[in-house]
Amino acid sequence: MRKNELTIIREIRERFSFPEILGVGIGDDAAVLNFKKSALITTDLMIENVHFDLSYTSFYHLGFKIVSVNVSDIYAMGGEFKSFLFSVGIPEIISENDFKDLFDGIDDALKYYEGYLIGGDISRSERVVLGGVAVGETDMPVLRKGAEAGDMIFITSFLGLSSAGLNLLRSFSDNEKKYIKSIKDFMNCKVSETEGINEILERHLMPRIRKTDKFKHIAKAMMDISDGLLIDLHRLCEESGVGAEIYLDRIPIHHAVMKIAEYLKIDPMKLILSGGEDYELLVISDKKEAEDYGLIHIGRIIEDKFIYLIDPLKGKIPAKPEGWQHF
Amino acid sequence: MRKNELTIIREIRERFSFPEILGVGIGDDAAVLNFKKSALITTDLMIENVHFDLSYTSFYHLGFKIVSVNVSDIYAMGGEFKSFLFSVGIPEIISENDFKDLFDGIDDALKYYEGYLIGGDISRSERVVLGGVAVGETDMPVLRKGAEAGDMIFITSFLGLSSAGLNLLRSFSDNEKKYIKSIKDFMNCKVSETEGINEILERHLMPRIRKTDKFKHIAKAMMDISDGLLIDLHRLCEESGVGAEIYLDRIPIHHAVMKIAEYLKIDPMKLILSGGEDYELLVISDKKEAEDYGLIHIGRIIEDKFIYLIDPLKGKIPAKPEGWQHF
Repeated sequence: MRKNELTIIREIRERFSFPEILGVGIGDDAAVLNFKKSALITTDLMIENVHFDLSYTSFYHLGFKIVSVNVSDIYAMGGEFKSFLFSVGIPEIISENDFKDLFDGIDDALKYYEGYLIGGDISRSERVVLGGVAVGETDMPVLRKGAEAGDMIFITSFLGLSSAGLNLLRSFSDNEKKYIKSIKDFMNCKVSETEGINEILERHLMPRIRKTDKFKHIAKAMMDISDGLLIDLHRLCEESGVGAEIYLDRIPIHHAVMKIAEYLKIDPMKLILSGGEDYELLVISDKKEAEDYGLIHIGRIIEDKFIYLIDPLKGKIPAKPEGWQHF
Repeated sequence: MRKNELTIIREIRERFSFPEILGVGIGDDAAVLNFKKSALITTDLMIENVHFDLSYTSFYHLGFKIVSVNVSDIYAMGGEFKSFLFSVGIPEIISENDFKDLFDGIDDALKYYEGYLIGGDISRSERVVLGGVAVGETDMPVLRKGAEAGDMIFITSFLGLSSAGLNLLRSFSDNEKKYIKSIKDFMNCKVSETEGINEILERHLMPRIRKTDKFKHIAKAMMDISDGLLIDLHRLCEESGVGAEIYLDRIPIHHAVMKIAEYLKIDPMKLILSGGEDYELLVISDKKEAEDYGLIHIGRIIEDKFIYLIDPLKGKIPAKPEGWQHF
């Protein structure tokens, strides 16, 4: 890229305006915001060759996803997403086009989630590094703490899609990977005849996070499933000082996850229980009407501080908190 | 490092507690904060081999510095620093000791600046990547915008120390570099007879940011000098729609910067005008009493939108906005 930093920042700033009445956005030492409710702040990194592979991930996908993974943490607190700070480390050899795609992805994600870009940092780096900070607000945060024995455990949708997508992407030919990189709208992606493959690829490459407005009032505890159902449930239980039972036969299995698991010879339950990056929600509630909001009842909170899988054939099996762990 | 992520996060959390009355800190999807004044948020990355070199930088220095560089942006807005989020990408081969040093540095910096660690993210990475988010508050932010023709330009202290330190560190032998890595308290560092070398090395490796409480009320515009005096003054002038004249003979030259420049055959004025990472402040004021607060008067704001250096011998020279630019 031949542009200098002053030009780059000027262009970003012209593109991402922030209404003066809300505070101060890009262009000063720090952003200035005024909160009427409690503020929510979260940060997540995405690092090349750890969180993503540029052979099948476009810069547009990356831009969209770095917003999504951070927004997910705001929604998981029952919050409204308001604004975003974006830090990026990129190799000098990046093209102006890739750089534009990255900010197109951020722009589209911010439009989707209705938030503003208010700051960030730009730097050289050997590998691509993306750092996001999402800022939100709420008058009643829903914490991980709050689950009690007897409460029901819900999830918001199918799980395992993202990690099925990841496994599938890795199995693709160079030409298929190249094709995937060109896609922004996965609804028209023609990579396979199998129904639902689009959804799975999109879930991995540019997840769209579910709002929690409709059901957050019935949640006693909530968190997003970013590292895998078992490990994230373990974290929620640890915060609440409880344990859990998961009814394996109640967990819905997505048609395409099953197909991909068969095709790649992976246990589909491993994708569902321990595959990360689904960004669906784990919702703990004592209200039966949770199901009216589309929440799926998959288990219950118990006093005993362990997590058990209840298999209709094998009975009660202690589960290890498996999932995406960095160390 | 053999510890798993759950253990690492548990240990960090036990170490960095956050008073419940202030909100929710580490351990949930997002931190929860309550602001009485306007909130300030900023983020800065530090990337191995771009911002630092592990041959002479210890993990302790890195921990301290990632807090400092972010706090600098809060102080530069006239804000009070309150809390910090820390993201880190580190190679798997990092030792538990290095990891502990990193958090010792963060802990000491947070004690120094009186703030709390309230969240973050931890991940594997080929190279060390540090991402900081500083959160502060103020009831009257001092922006870059606000300078008017006729105002005086002040700096808070000597400049060029950090980049003199950087150049010196690069010239060190392996043994000297190793020794530098072992130092936490630079006042007792014995690497050279030259007075002030300690200060210069400390300024580069673990800068301590100056509070702005005493003089922020007289500032019409303010920013930190992180990329170099000329480029940062250019940014401030651009925001304010003005230009500037710098009186070269008014800029104080630090004894050790002069010595190092001589020794390494670098132009000392290049270090002072364009060396980055000093984290001193650029303060614009129309109040003569600014000097009573120790501020150093080095120039004036003009209508003409360029920056000129006024050299007592050569006269008025147009200056290019030079400094640390990533692209």
